[in-house]
Amino acid sequence: MHVLIIGAAGMIGRKLTARLAAGATLGRDIDRLTLVDVMAPEVPAAFAGRAEAHTIDLSAPGAAERLVAARPDVIFHLAGIVSGEAEADFEKGYRINLDGTRQLFEAIRAEAARAPYRPRLVFTSSIAVFGAPFPERIGDEFVLTPLTSYGTQKAIGELLLADYSRRGFFDGIGIRLPTICIRPGAPNKAASGFFSNILREPLSGREAVLPVGEDVRHWFASPRAAVGFLLHAATLDLTRVGPRRNLNMPGLSATVGEEIEALRRVAGERAVALIRREPDPVIDAIVTGWARELDAQRALALGFRAETTFEEIVRAHVEDELGGVVG
Amino acid sequence: MHVLIIGAAGMIGRKLTARLAAGATLGRDIDRLTLVDVMAPEVPAAFAGRAEAHTIDLSAPGAAERLVAARPDVIFHLAGIVSGEAEADFEKGYRINLDGTRQLFEAIRAEAARAPYRPRLVFTSSIAVFGAPFPERIGDEFVLTPLTSYGTQKAIGELLLADYSRRGFFDGIGIRLPTICIRPGAPNKAASGFFSNILREPLSGREAVLPVGEDVRHWFASPRAAVGFLLHAATLDLTRVGPRRNLNMPGLSATVGEEIEALRRVAGERAVALIRREPDPVIDAIVTGWARELDAQRALALGFRAETTFEEIVRAHVEDELGGVVG
Repeated sequence: MHVLIIGAAGMIGRKLTARLAAGATLGRDIDRLTLVDVMAPEVPAAFAGRAEAHTIDLSAPGAAERLVAARPDVIFHLAGIVSGEAEADFEKGYRINLDGTRQLFEAIRAEAARAPYRPRLVFTSSIAVFGAPFPERIGDEFVLTPLTSYGTQKAIGELLLADYSRRGFFDGIGIRLPTICIRPGAPNKAASGFFSNILREPLSGREAVLPVGEDVRHWFASPRAAVGFLLHAATLDLTRVGPRRNLNMPGLSATVGEEIEALRRVAGERAVALIRREPDPVIDAIVTGWARELDAQRALALGFRAETTFEEIVRAHVEDELGGVVG
Repeated sequence: MHVLIIGAAGMIGRKLTARLAAGATLGRDIDRLTLVDVMAPEVPAAFAGRAEAHTIDLSAPGAAERLVAARPDVIFHLAGIVSGEAEADFEKGYRINLDGTRQLFEAIRAEAARAPYRPRLVFTSSIAVFGAPFPERIGDEFVLTPLTSYGTQKAIGELLLADYSRRGFFDGIGIRLPTICIRPGAPNKAASGFFSNILREPLSGREAVLPVGEDVRHWFASPRAAVGFLLHAATLDLTRVGPRRNLNMPGLSATVGEEIEALRRVAGERAVALIRREPDPVIDAIVTGWARELDAQRALALGFRAETTFEEIVRAHVEDELGGVVG
């Protein structure tokens, strides 16, 4: 089985690559792995099969066609520029997030027209397809009214994916990821960065800034859970999904206070004391407009699983990123 | 005021043109009318101002830019290929309905970048953005899950319109038209054609075929009401609408039996006797998947109005198409 990961150098892409290289199968054994991103993805040394990395911009002319010509069995489309950049650079956002996606879908359609071909396509969407005002719990039947260009581009990707799947050009599934927490790496200046910063930094003995109140509620899943969603989406029997191919992924609705409580249980009072409260009304106003909870009953019924307590999310980080050791 | 109508040769486009030529204003008097379609639109003789007709395919390179260069104050974007054709010809549907729309939006953005410009843009969408299963009454907050390529293209147009409006490139509003009834002209082979055929033909003394049962329920507005929606959308204060720029238009939920009852009241038993029942399971199956009723409370609150009885719909046809005379 040949697996193509577009966006392989990103945080989720790297973790997915590592899981596949470490022997995760997608129903069948994987003997070929093609890794693509705008920055060179790292080829996993551990992988027993054939692995290649390509530095390619999916939106460049002919790029999608070249990738699809090798007829991968499973395509993970994780590529895209993030919300802040898509908002700051309108043209780039539409070029990468919309045109890149459409060119991939069109390349598959063209390849399928040459000789029968119908890959599984897993597309990462986002809760940014929803825009306030929304109900306390946002269901799979809630209207798509994004309030960012990024959310608009993701919503359009979802619609295209459903139509191309319905027409039989590929077998697609779109998964709306919760906010990923704890994001590994350096503190992030994104408005959502503090959700991870206030756990990741104290877990390693460093200070972190909390710009909002403890009652702020949001929707989370760990990087480990996100990779689990991707693997499950790649193997799920899609006849069970029907024509509505884009699903809210399960997650955990939690307050900042609950995050801190989980940190206390895992790493003690000393870690909690590293959180410095510096209220920022700008970030507070942004975050107030975000989804607090999603209803993921369809995904749960289809076997997608996420953490059910914040302590699990924190422990997943300690195990996966810190070798089990709290700093 | 300069008004541009794209799709001016279609049924709604012709009626809108006639209303504007007959003196309907859009807040300000209209002194210039530009009519565009893939087939030559007719220039209304009655119009006092400057009127031009152009035979242009909006999706052709440079077409949108040429139209927008004249900086029309109000743009009605009614152009598109219909559902059946978009389903039969995948590439043409996306080229005309999606790329054409996006090229128009991009042309406006480019024009606005040269010098301040922010036209009102009225886009006709469709209840085809919704797909079964849906609730008995489909609200403005129901998820967009079209089950046709046409519906997908309209839903994407809606999302783009909302984002371009949010970014301030134009002041857009999308209106989801009900099934238009009574469509003037020759009997239509579209699956929905019988809804109009069974009224229009008997009203002129001709037979019509009814392929479904009398209990089939659907969502209707007259051509006259549709033109009313467009005029209202062109002048409405959009600060009242907010970021959700795409609205279910009001209509009338009625059964085929109620249609026939209205025909009986307007044209008598002799007209009703011209309806020939020829059950067609294929059409019945298609129509069963369609929306039966929409909740248009937002549009109603914003002043959009449609007929409230089928008798009004029938009488509108008799007045507007038959000179008040039932054949």
